[in-house]
Amino acid sequence: MSHGTLLVISAPSGAGKTTLLKKIMADVPNLGFSVSHTTRPPRPGERNGVDYHFVSREEFLAMRAAGAFLEWAEVHTNLYGTSKQAVAEKLASGVDVFLDIDVQGARQLKAAGELAAIFLFVAPPSWQELERRLSGRGTESAETVRVRLANARKEMAEAHWYDYLIVNDDLAAATAMLQAVILAERCRGRRAANGAPLTIPQP
Amino acid sequence: MSHGTLLVISAPSGAGKTTLLKKIMADVPNLGFSVSHTTRPPRPGERNGVDYHFVSREEFLAMRAAGAFLEWAEVHTNLYGTSKQAVAEKLASGVDVFLDIDVQGARQLKAAGELAAIFLFVAPPSWQELERRLSGRGTESAETVRVRLANARKEMAEAHWYDYLIVNDDLAAATAMLQAVILAERCRGRRAANGAPLTIPQP
Repeated sequence: MSHGTLLVISAPSGAGKTTLLKKIMADVPNLGFSVSHTTRPPRPGERNGVDYHFVSREEFLAMRAAGAFLEWAEVHTNLYGTSKQAVAEKLASGVDVFLDIDVQGARQLKAAGELAAIFLFVAPPSWQELERRLSGRGTESAETVRVRLANARKEMAEAHWYDYLIVNDDLAAATAMLQAVILAERCRGRRAANGAPLTIPQP
Repeated sequence: MSHGTLLVISAPSGAGKTTLLKKIMADVPNLGFSVSHTTRPPRPGERNGVDYHFVSREEFLAMRAAGAFLEWAEVHTNLYGTSKQAVAEKLASGVDVFLDIDVQGARQLKAAGELAAIFLFVAPPSWQELERRLSGRGTESAETVRVRLANARKEMAEAHWYDYLIVNDDLAAATAMLQAVILAERCRGRRAANGAPLTIPQP
């Protein structure tokens, strides 16, 4: 069984990444997510080891100190992390693993260079369309929209170093592009994930 | 208009490259071939500038001396070459250009590094299957089959340095893989062909 590829995916809020990921998971076999660790308490219906590995702050900090995380972040006083072991096990089972992280996390991961990964950036078709999408939800305050646009501006400035840029104008077209990237990476002559050549028929 | 990608494709005889290329040209828009130069006389129905640029041996040698060819080869006393200008013009028009050349030509091109290119290798699913395909045609002598198998052995030994390996077990699956590679390369964050970042929406 060949080794999976780690697919790091980032996007500004409003680019449509979540919808795109749902669609691609439904369409393409052998794709998965790694289960993250978090210190936030489970919400109703969330299962330990399925939605998250729920751990105490002490456990999380001990893991972090031991270098167990590929990347981690603190959001609203809760800690979130992606354990190297969880990702490595999933990859070894031959599944391509999506890692849905922001540009800071992605940059950390690339800089560390411990695990070979393909970096994908999902962008809105235009700045105007992003504004329209963020405002159009109608559920956010003007201030929230302003903050999201400011964040999107910073995130878009990082898009250039990603391996692939998926412009999400139309969901079907963007899904086809993302699927193409996944399939293409599966026939890379040398799989980035382990550096070994694919098995090719020999005389 | 974005710049096209140069797609160099090689395969041992019997891998099914020609059928695969016909299928992909029919299925995917914005794909083309560059028109080669040759010193061999036109066959009935062949048109100058369409099938080949038919030139005299003197013209060909002068072009070669001037460094006009990306790669060239001599086959049965006829010279064949791919002119840099023909390829560059096609790429500049936004078309992805296939260059169907053997491993020696591909290696020349990669070593020269003048024009960024993606290297694709089409392989048969197994050695047994290649033997079956080459013998099964029934039109070739045992000696011809033996020579082709020996050549295939040498070509397969070069597959490892290609960017992508398309294993042609089933035509539909191989076409899907090739299509995926082409689409994926079209959303590369930095287009290999010109090194410039794709246009991304900016605030």
